[in-house]
Amino acid sequence: MVDITDFRNGMSLLSGAVNVITTAGASGRFGFTASAVCSVTDTPPTLLVCMNRSSSSHCHFKDNEILTVNVLGAQQQDVSQAFSSKISMDERFNFGEWITLATGSPVLKDALVSFDCQVKQMNEVGTHTIFYCEVQAIQTNTEGEHSGLIYFNRSYHHVGKLSA
Amino acid sequence: MVDITDFRNGMSLLSGAVNVITTAGASGRFGFTASAVCSVTDTPPTLLVCMNRSSSSHCHFKDNEILTVNVLGAQQQDVSQAFSSKISMDERFNFGEWITLATGSPVLKDALVSFDCQVKQMNEVGTHTIFYCEVQAIQTNTEGEHSGLIYFNRSYHHVGKLSA
Repeated sequence: MVDITDFRNGMSLLSGAVNVITTAGASGRFGFTASAVCSVTDTPPTLLVCMNRSSSSHCHFKDNEILTVNVLGAQQQDVSQAFSSKISMDERFNFGEWITLATGSPVLKDALVSFDCQVKQMNEVGTHTIFYCEVQAIQTNTEGEHSGLIYFNRSYHHVGKLSA
Repeated sequence: MVDITDFRNGMSLLSGAVNVITTAGASGRFGFTASAVCSVTDTPPTLLVCMNRSSSSHCHFKDNEILTVNVLGAQQQDVSQAFSSKISMDERFNFGEWITLATGSPVLKDALVSFDCQVKQMNEVGTHTIFYCEVQAIQTNTEGEHSGLIYFNRSYHHVGKLSA
């Protein structure tokens, strides 16, 4: 087994897209910044999100059973910072414009791409829950020049350019 | 439910690190290129890898119960292409220099970082298996100037610079 600090240092070199994961419903409206998202299968279209069970919003995602993965563009570092800060949920949602698609979970209107999902299965591993989510609707914003927001080596970076 | 093409197009905008996942053991030596890797928890240090069950090497990863996630640096696009091509497993391992750490699974000597893992749990979702892997050893190469290899919008990109 490896040391936790070595593991964290190693993981800081695994670059990842920056996403804001949101939910809304009877249990309230919540959102946080995360990079632990990945594609699972396209039959049916499914992704997974890894969430710490000790986070205050974890139980609300579990109760609402819906979530949206909003993949941030290079110009949305302020949204990433708001959703990883100590400010209240209401204050967080003051950053960006929010709409809904199929499930009612908050969708960031100008995210690079948003996946609006129904949670289908949860799997607990150590301190975390893996949410397996079936995609109900997708919104993409690829008009104009956009690039992706990346977290690598403990800082933000930009990647690529999408042509109009 | 969304269309598979829309899902794939949307997922092409979720940037990801480029990794070569390897295994070795009684079942043989195998490796393939994948971006569907993410950190799960640090207690104990665990990551997940998502693998298509229809791939020819899937059963060998399952049998060997060990795997290494080799996170590629910007200069290793040739290794990525070899491990996602139609060439034989032996030919693939001619790209790069391979060593072993704790488990005996192949470790790319100059990968940005390699996580040498024991598979602890498998979860089948649709067409894919999620391998939950406990990290047994880590190798990092951060001397000199290195940057990460990213796949975004269906092409390779480089991100960041690590200072010596």
